[in-house]
Amino acid sequence: MSSLTVAHLGGLMVPAVSTFTASGEIDGSAFQRNLDAHLSFGMDGVLVGGSSGESSLLDDEDRRTLLRLARERVPADKWLLAGIGSESTRQTMSRAHDAKAAGADAVLVISPHYFLKRMTEAALLTHFRAVADASPLPVLLYNMPAYAHLVLSPAFVQEMAQHPNVIGMKDSAGNLPVLAQYLEAQSDSFRVLTGSGGTVVPALEAGVSGAILAIGLYAGAAVRRMVDLYRAGDREAAAALQQTLVPIAADIGGALGPAGIKAAMTLVGLDGTVPRGPLLPVSDEERAIVRARLTTAGLL
Amino acid sequence: MSSLTVAHLGGLMVPAVSTFTASGEIDGSAFQRNLDAHLSFGMDGVLVGGSSGESSLLDDEDRRTLLRLARERVPADKWLLAGIGSESTRQTMSRAHDAKAAGADAVLVISPHYFLKRMTEAALLTHFRAVADASPLPVLLYNMPAYAHLVLSPAFVQEMAQHPNVIGMKDSAGNLPVLAQYLEAQSDSFRVLTGSGGTVVPALEAGVSGAILAIGLYAGAAVRRMVDLYRAGDREAAAALQQTLVPIAADIGGALGPAGIKAAMTLVGLDGTVPRGPLLPVSDEERAIVRARLTTAGLL
Amino acid sequence: MSSLTVAHLGGLMVPAVSTFTASGEIDGSAFQRNLDAHLSFGMDGVLVGGSSGESSLLDDEDRRTLLRLARERVPADKWLLAGIGSESTRQTMSRAHDAKAAGADAVLVISPHYFLKRMTEAALLTHFRAVADASPLPVLLYNMPAYAHLVLSPAFVQEMAQHPNVIGMKDSAGNLPVLAQYLEAQSDSFRVLTGSGGTVVPALEAGVSGAILAIGLYAGAAVRRMVDLYRAGDREAAAALQQTLVPIAADIGGALGPAGIKAAMTLVGLDGTVPRGPLLPVSDEERAIVRARLTTAGLL
Amino acid sequence: MSSLTVAHLGGLMVPAVSTFTASGEIDGSAFQRNLDAHLSFGMDGVLVGGSSGESSLLDDEDRRTLLRLARERVPADKWLLAGIGSESTRQTMSRAHDAKAAGADAVLVISPHYFLKRMTEAALLTHFRAVADASPLPVLLYNMPAYAHLVLSPAFVQEMAQHPNVIGMKDSAGNLPVLAQYLEAQSDSFRVLTGSGGTVVPALEAGVSGAILAIGLYAGAAVRRMVDLYRAGDREAAAALQQTLVPIAADIGGALGPAGIKAAMTLVGLDGTVPRGPLLPVSDEERAIVRARLTTAGLL
Repeated sequence: MSSLTVAHLGGLMVPAVSTFTASGEIDGSAFQRNLDAHLSFGMDGVLVGGSSGESSLLDDEDRRTLLRLARERVPADKWLLAGIGSESTRQTMSRAHDAKAAGADAVLVISPHYFLKRMTEAALLTHFRAVADASPLPVLLYNMPAYAHLVLSPAFVQEMAQHPNVIGMKDSAGNLPVLAQYLEAQSDSFRVLTGSGGTVVPALEAGVSGAILAIGLYAGAAVRRMVDLYRAGDREAAAALQQTLVPIAADIGGALGPAGIKAAMTLVGLDGTVPRGPLLPVSDEERAIVRARLTTAGLL
Repeated sequence: MSSLTVAHLGGLMVPAVSTFTASGEIDGSAFQRNLDAHLSFGMDGVLVGGSSGESSLLDDEDRRTLLRLARERVPADKWLLAGIGSESTRQTMSRAHDAKAAGADAVLVISPHYFLKRMTEAALLTHFRAVADASPLPVLLYNMPAYAHLVLSPAFVQEMAQHPNVIGMKDSAGNLPVLAQYLEAQSDSFRVLTGSGGTVVPALEAGVSGAILAIGLYAGAAVRRMVDLYRAGDREAAAALQQTLVPIAADIGGALGPAGIKAAMTLVGLDGTVPRGPLLPVSDEERAIVRARLTTAGLL
Repeated sequence: MSSLTVAHLGGLMVPAVSTFTASGEIDGSAFQRNLDAHLSFGMDGVLVGGSSGESSLLDDEDRRTLLRLARERVPADKWLLAGIGSESTRQTMSRAHDAKAAGADAVLVISPHYFLKRMTEAALLTHFRAVADASPLPVLLYNMPAYAHLVLSPAFVQEMAQHPNVIGMKDSAGNLPVLAQYLEAQSDSFRVLTGSGGTVVPALEAGVSGAILAIGLYAGAAVRRMVDLYRAGDREAAAALQQTLVPIAADIGGALGPAGIKAAMTLVGLDGTVPRGPLLPVSDEERAIVRARLTTAGLL
Repeated sequence: MSSLTVAHLGGLMVPAVSTFTASGEIDGSAFQRNLDAHLSFGMDGVLVGGSSGESSLLDDEDRRTLLRLARERVPADKWLLAGIGSESTRQTMSRAHDAKAAGADAVLVISPHYFLKRMTEAALLTHFRAVADASPLPVLLYNMPAYAHLVLSPAFVQEMAQHPNVIGMKDSAGNLPVLAQYLEAQSDSFRVLTGSGGTVVPALEAGVSGAILAIGLYAGAAVRRMVDLYRAGDREAAAALQQTLVPIAADIGGALGPAGIKAAMTLVGLDGTVPRGPLLPVSDEERAIVRARLTTAGLL
């Protein structure tokens, strides 16, 4: 983690999409072109293997390849986060070692959820502690109810925040009252980041240290400006910009998932590429919605 | 509706609790004492028969009684809204006439939901149009997924906003991206109000015309100040105040419902009284949480 | 309850539909014609004011009228059950007295559910005990997750079965493993009835004392024969008949609710009449499905 | 598939648990001892890598190892099914080839579900067709709403049943009305199996060709007898036996998942071994429930 410390954990990051060729292989050059573009907008870090990165559709070799390609582009003073969560405790641990070898700075771990009824607080604590104990990289918790069907409880977050190898969390639920409870665990050694593009300004007002935003993938300049305006004290302008981004966040990434994000990237001139099966590319009708939302927001 | 016009629909209102004696009868004097206190904090209107008012536990006579008692206290230049939604179209219509006779200015109508699977967009349009056609008072739509298990779609809201006797809506979901879509229907003849105490400032930033807030029942001065600060252009102070109110909104009304709101009112010196069965009063443990949240927020 | 005793609680009953004129008033003559037809198929009792009877759309006067009309037709040695469940404990008690006055033999009480999160086991026990203490008629519990969004726990049923004025329950969920747990509470003073038309034979094999079946409203002869075959020991023929009734139960009452049941009744020559708003009559397409299912099952 | 043909697809099978050493490695000798015991009860086949086999916690090498070990024990005239479903279409295809190489006779494919909102009927058809086109082994569809949060629609099943390389499905939902609709797709080239231990006899009455039952893992003799009694025409005795197995199915596999099944196996003298993280072994209290259920059913 070289020069990076927990105190640095924050700023504005993006969850890079995984780029594929038509036959479904990793498209490394498209991936790096996208990263260069993201960094040119002043992003403070990149997450590889998040939900927007179709994490659940990557095998371990894919994940290592993407991380190595990312490290070639993401400078040492910016964060490279690796999404490594898996259903299995063992596999999550193994991926943490892979992430270290590939040059990542920290890992992001979603809650397992296949055996949902058995994912009690005790089971989750056992899982996350085992991963945090074993991981050679610092760990961020990942609250993602839309995909995992469970909400990390504030008590769980408080408990895990005590672990010396847990440095923060990403909350993608965007439920502000719950976020406020997560923030009670925030400290110099535990940072809370938001992953909800429709509520960035309220989350900043609530006190989050930073954001990892899919809208930053195709609206990088606008998202960067929104955060900068807020940091500069111009909350009103930040809030106004937030309003223009709310429908984008909801109707592109929220409703259409990675396929929608990729379509939006392609429309703004990046290399969205196709999603992997079972995800289908957006339909013509869906693409028209994406285009309309981007146009309304002044992004096209 | 005397001097009130749709253009006035907005400001800060409270959803009054229904007060009961120990034997479960309406406690009229407690009810009016509470209303006087609410109005002393500068509330712009009162809703009788909302969810916080245990609407589903009132019979038609109770509702008429409470409305008449309220009209004695709520001056003619402030809004008296009547929550009248029922499972049945006929009964909703009948209650609209009762509300008019009792002196209300407008009615609030929740979506029916017992036969949830059959509450298609077509069925909801038929119901709400029939009510709006028949009602002698103007109608507000009420989006309350926590209790009704369905979300009014933005397309539905857009459609109903065209009806000449529909003047607005109350959104208690607090989902900001969806709220943004509701706001596309806002006009001089259709006002969107928020009912979500944890997201008032973001909702104001998004453009709502006003708010009907259960937190205003026991934190009237603070909530009034928050809205006034925002209106005066001091968004930063408003947002800071919002942060102190987020855990209150979540842990009192959100988690404990009318029983929690009534306990909070009693703790701040109002007449919370007991809820009606099947609602139980808060337990000692729950009351301790209410007290702790109020203390932290500086309300005790 | 004259000659009826708990030991008699069982057999095959139907949940009568509430019949309405085009303007939405009670159609008493249609109601009694239907009852006569049901009884001609050898039904052992009738439930008025169940979910199929659009209970949530009836006001108290409607319910009293329908019960009085029913008692004129249902002989004293057959059960007349009154569905009286309401959101409010008080109103449920009041309706129990109405039901007694109108001549009912027992009352069926659904769990309140508007304030779903607060309907803890403690709250439900308090509600049902208060109703059972106050009711002048014996009480049946009603488990109906499809509409109430909660499942009565086997522990709750076991507890309530001890109450001297609680004589049984109707389970409309049709979840056989849970039903097996309810049946552990069955005794000479507590009878378990099924309300699930797609699983009657398995429920009888599991040990239920009887059934209240919406499919009996439009397929009376077939349902009567199925139960009689089973009682006569010809389980194989009963099970075969059950198979022909499974798609009917699922696609008519299950998918289309009271509107579907009413359409089926009309198709077989009874007086289905229209549902009350907000329920819409079935569409032409839905009526074609109802007709097709009835035809396949040899009922048309 | 040597001597096995679709016409043979049926009978009684078990979904073997994956056995692990204390350090989490595959325990091959425990695995084969268990298989020998299962086969000694006359099982007609074995599924490796089902939900009971902790499929989501196995990596590809584990799955290959277990299949090879199984093939050494499962004779050529009995079915060896491989559960291969993954979130990714590519990985599912790749595992089909692995399964063929390891000696399996057919593959079982669960619906992907991480990107749940995007798993439209069109996406599922594209996924399953791609897998069925590419798989060197015949394919069974796997309906498992408890874990996948989606129900395969009868129309989807009907459509996929036309594919020449799709030979059947396993339905673990146990919803009899929906099962009846699946059975409309059954033919000489498409067999429907049930995976619901609480509804085996009703499912057989409905017409399923066979069953893959976790209760068969620890109650092999009883489950075998139940099916044999049914096949011999003694439905009454089969149904009585079913009743004793209902609470076992619900309270062991249903409530406790693989950890409960493994505890039950250990209690009856097999090698349950520990589950893999994040699954925790059953608690002492849970083990007492498992023991009590087995005792009541006469299995201990």
